[in-house]
Amino acid sequence: MTPDDVIAARRRISPWVRQTPVIVWDDHPRKPILKLEALQVTGSFKARGAFNRVLVAREAGDIGAAGVIGASGGNAGLALAYAANRLGIPAEIVVPETSSPVKLERLRTLGATVVVQGQRYGDAYDWAIARQAETGALFVHAYDQAEVVAGQGTTGIEFLEQVGELDVVMVAAGGGGLVAGVRLAVPPKTRVIAVEPELAPTIRRALEHGAPLDVDVAGLAADSLGARRCGDIAFEILSKLGVESILVTEEEMVTARRRLWDEFRLVGEYGGVAALAAYLADKVPLAPSERVGIIFCGANSDPSDLMDNPGRA
Amino acid sequence: MTPDDVIAARRRISPWVRQTPVIVWDDHPRKPILKLEALQVTGSFKARGAFNRVLVAREAGDIGAAGVIGASGGNAGLALAYAANRLGIPAEIVVPETSSPVKLERLRTLGATVVVQGQRYGDAYDWAIARQAETGALFVHAYDQAEVVAGQGTTGIEFLEQVGELDVVMVAAGGGGLVAGVRLAVPPKTRVIAVEPELAPTIRRALEHGAPLDVDVAGLAADSLGARRCGDIAFEILSKLGVESILVTEEEMVTARRRLWDEFRLVGEYGGVAALAAYLADKVPLAPSERVGIIFCGANSDPSDLMDNPGRA
Repeated sequence: MTPDDVIAARRRISPWVRQTPVIVWDDHPRKPILKLEALQVTGSFKARGAFNRVLVAREAGDIGAAGVIGASGGNAGLALAYAANRLGIPAEIVVPETSSPVKLERLRTLGATVVVQGQRYGDAYDWAIARQAETGALFVHAYDQAEVVAGQGTTGIEFLEQVGELDVVMVAAGGGGLVAGVRLAVPPKTRVIAVEPELAPTIRRALEHGAPLDVDVAGLAADSLGARRCGDIAFEILSKLGVESILVTEEEMVTARRRLWDEFRLVGEYGGVAALAAYLADKVPLAPSERVGIIFCGANSDPSDLMDNPGRA
Repeated sequence: MTPDDVIAARRRISPWVRQTPVIVWDDHPRKPILKLEALQVTGSFKARGAFNRVLVAREAGDIGAAGVIGASGGNAGLALAYAANRLGIPAEIVVPETSSPVKLERLRTLGATVVVQGQRYGDAYDWAIARQAETGALFVHAYDQAEVVAGQGTTGIEFLEQVGELDVVMVAAGGGGLVAGVRLAVPPKTRVIAVEPELAPTIRRALEHGAPLDVDVAGLAADSLGARRCGDIAFEILSKLGVESILVTEEEMVTARRRLWDEFRLVGEYGGVAALAAYLADKVPLAPSERVGIIFCGANSDPSDLMDNPGRA
């Protein structure tokens, strides 16, 4: 993959996704710039990758009557269901039994056929792969396909177009689709920081091991950053082009989510605020002159608890 | 007042307030543009007016040891407390007994001296005026002072700078500070729509009557748009330069607030989404070619109820 893949993806998906806004946190000493990708359709960056994957296939005439299929009870499934709905393509979304009724209802509202299979995500995934072989639907992976990585990378191009050069871009990482896409999209000299929860260190372990491997995942952000295995495509991009790996604690994500609400009245999901958490906890060594961008990438969170703290205005 | 007052205000307050982002709702047929002013410091546009009023006085040497005083248990009080805090000036905020403990705690956290006086806002206001005469503090009105109107108007200048020409700008209106400031700031040919709740039609009644008059106010948005009387300054600007008055129902605001969450994962307060409510309810006659801007101006709302509806992604 090359940066041109991301540029092509951007042209392809731009009628279907939002240019999400940026805001300079200018009452904060370093004035970091937040990319508000959580305002994307379906509440996360995942719509970019899903649209790119489906549109490439549609252009190639690779989508038949069975439409598309994916495995995810989270943001990737929502994004795929939405993309299929907008493009008038049938979608089958396979989710594990642990998925919340609210999420299943959202998928159904978008017109997807929802199939509940297995206790864990891996079971749903395996079922979806077998089902795909049967129906011939287009399989859309949550992160490990070139079109998906290129689509997520459009977040990075767009960010730089909006704010100019950045020295550092901080990105939450699960399976690595977004961070690899951004790594591809931004200039080699830009530091890209992959931020993962300590309890889901999938990229970190893969980088240490020298190859993707299965990792135990848990914690508050497991629903969005809890991929058990780094994508092969992401791994190749990250190990070749270079990335810095940072881990954040549960508490650091809790603090960042609260802070985002207190300062901006924005609701974030734990995974979506992981990059901000690393920044706020001073986890990333930064030179005073470095210009920092932070991608806030997911908002699919129940905001009910946010009103408790009257501490800040 | 002239547009130059708004331009001067912008220069004055820009180190202290945020340039709030805009987002094109491009998956909506007409592609309206939302100005996300609710991401402003303190969660509403009120910070702009408060900073301008206080900074003008400070430049003139008009702020003594007593600092500043205002009457408001809502966004204006929060904004004044914040501005005073940032500028290192003492602030006394007078609030009625009906103010929520959460809001009082926020004011105190910002270092303000909070004085609880009277059952209704009017009582707190009268007490603050009397207190000001005693202490010599700078009185900062919630909407009816030239510096406050000019400060709020910077929202309009900034909006046009970000998105280019707009044919229509829709603005929530309470006492009229924001809508009058925006009316001053945008070109005469731009249609400015003042949107009020049916239950708080302060501007509408003043325009009908030909002068500000006391109006009964109630309803969901009373805490932010429930000024009982249109400001004299706002009235003069609006009646001279022209404004269209639109009223929205309680239900239309409820729908708009819900829609903002469902589509963008943004939390709005009822008053803050009034302009969006008018747009979504097709209350404003629009030509197909007209380019529409909508100011979303307040987010100080308890988001606890927003998770109930799984209806949309």
